[in-house]
Amino acid sequence: MKICIVGSSGHYVYALRGIKEDPDAKIVGISPGCEGENIERLYSQVNEMGFAPVVYSNPISMFEELKPDIAVINTFFYKNSELAIEAMERGIHVYMEKPVALSIEELEELKSVWKQTKVKLSSMLGLRYTPHFWTAYKLINENKIGRIRLIHAQKSYKLGMRPDFYKQRRTYGGTIPWVGIHAIDWIYWLSGKKFKSVFARHSKLYNNDHGELEATAFCSFVMEDEIFATVNIDYLRPNDAPTHDDDRIRVVGTNGIIEVINGKVFLLNDETKEAIEIKTEDPPVIFLDFLNEVRSTGKCLVSSEDSFYMTLASLLARESADRERVIEFY
Amino acid sequence: MKICIVGSSGHYVYALRGIKEDPDAKIVGISPGCEGENIERLYSQVNEMGFAPVVYSNPISMFEELKPDIAVINTFFYKNSELAIEAMERGIHVYMEKPVALSIEELEELKSVWKQTKVKLSSMLGLRYTPHFWTAYKLINENKIGRIRLIHAQKSYKLGMRPDFYKQRRTYGGTIPWVGIHAIDWIYWLSGKKFKSVFARHSKLYNNDHGELEATAFCSFVMEDEIFATVNIDYLRPNDAPTHDDDRIRVVGTNGIIEVINGKVFLLNDETKEAIEIKTEDPPVIFLDFLNEVRSTGKCLVSSEDSFYMTLASLLARESADRERVIEFY
Repeated sequence: MKICIVGSSGHYVYALRGIKEDPDAKIVGISPGCEGENIERLYSQVNEMGFAPVVYSNPISMFEELKPDIAVINTFFYKNSELAIEAMERGIHVYMEKPVALSIEELEELKSVWKQTKVKLSSMLGLRYTPHFWTAYKLINENKIGRIRLIHAQKSYKLGMRPDFYKQRRTYGGTIPWVGIHAIDWIYWLSGKKFKSVFARHSKLYNNDHGELEATAFCSFVMEDEIFATVNIDYLRPNDAPTHDDDRIRVVGTNGIIEVINGKVFLLNDETKEAIEIKTEDPPVIFLDFLNEVRSTGKCLVSSEDSFYMTLASLLARESADRERVIEFY
Repeated sequence: MKICIVGSSGHYVYALRGIKEDPDAKIVGISPGCEGENIERLYSQVNEMGFAPVVYSNPISMFEELKPDIAVINTFFYKNSELAIEAMERGIHVYMEKPVALSIEELEELKSVWKQTKVKLSSMLGLRYTPHFWTAYKLINENKIGRIRLIHAQKSYKLGMRPDFYKQRRTYGGTIPWVGIHAIDWIYWLSGKKFKSVFARHSKLYNNDHGELEATAFCSFVMEDEIFATVNIDYLRPNDAPTHDDDRIRVVGTNGIIEVINGKVFLLNDETKEAIEIKTEDPPVIFLDFLNEVRSTGKCLVSSEDSFYMTLASLLARESADRERVIEFY
């Protein structure tokens, strides 16, 4: 299984984790995805794993000369979709950064090429593979809280100093699609329900000289069966806080409540009688399940359809925030 | 200081707490506010405090005969506004249940009588007087988190079996005005900012045979200065949970984050470096500050204006939920 990695501006480490667990996976080439993208750290990490990849300056030449089975694509965000299309058109399976596109038009084009080429595609919605979110998913599927009725999810990040491409909508895509998409994904994945409408807002104020980057946002979703879900997103986590992020979700069901907070899972229902911490279970190994899907020996936890739908939901939420109005899903 | 209590369907115990601390306050009369309202428990509590109130069946007769300084009004929700007007028109100061009206028209009438009569009016937004919310307020006013940018508040209650008047919108008013108003009040009080617009939704599904009562709801507010605030409201707290309610707020500022959860207060900023628990401070004694305002020796923490504005905000949120559209504040 030959793998090429394009860019190092996203979560390529997810791919490295799965590759480490797979004796037949080989990183054969790496390349920046955009001019000016520094891939030195990627190179040294791949090297430490014992691979000696060919280093390209152009990902298309890499695809054509090395003919990999899989392209891992995570360059400056605005180029991911285009490069995924280039890979798919050469019959290369794609594991790519989320969101998989920065506009609805790009998303439609990506989907259409995916349908035609019939390659496998998954995206870096990697938080599904954390023990805490995976355990919440298992508990909900074991019917520990009954029917889901209300959800609140939180993404809070340190801002620090971000690369220049974060400072323009055109190259960054926006905070709802970049950060909020994870929370949107938990809501969809944990509830198993489709979105009906979204109302969202975002603000660039107090973004510490990050141009067009939105420092705060919220989304509110109405889902099937009158299920409601809200999301709070911010880049205002203090720099000295112990972790980079503070990811949370609270899921209220007809028979109980599940929460993920501080990497822990709590369950409250009429059996537990109080919110008790639940021992987390081991999730599937990220990217390893994608390798298995490419081999047709398994299914990836993040399907192509999920990757497209989460991108759509985050782009419609961004549109709602831009236009300051409710957007219906279609 | 002569006090009459009308009804016992709300938080009259707030008044009892203040009266216990005030040697000059006397409960001289009690009465139901509606036909069918049982005030036996109120009677025995007032009796245990050493008062021998005259018991009326009609609150208007009580107002006219006893000429109290203050009427505490908390009957079936749909009658509170009307009885407050009756009291004010007789020059009686009013301490009443929130929301102070169940419709915008009622609210406007109440405000207009209040303006004409110049009596003092406050409402039972009693959670401001809890050590945890009071301490959060103090910390924010000591500038521990900088400028507020994003807020999420939670109200979660056990439903149990509610009296019949909860089952109709006409007599109950709705879950956003009855339960959500507290969260809306924290947002307003802690931020000190006005609301610009609201988008909300609510659902009667899974309300355990409570007719029109909404079991779940959310509100999302845009405030001045692009401050955003979301609220989750539910009646789905499991019956066996250790407390009736699970009140929370998370306030994100430009220089830190404050949270209230489980009756505790946590502060994270670049000085604390992690979310540390803050020892709570003693709040003012509820109702005692209203007694002092009536005497012109102090100010009540919950002003007349705040009581009206919180009612307005919760009624506009309810309207947004009913009409499924964004409502602008005026």
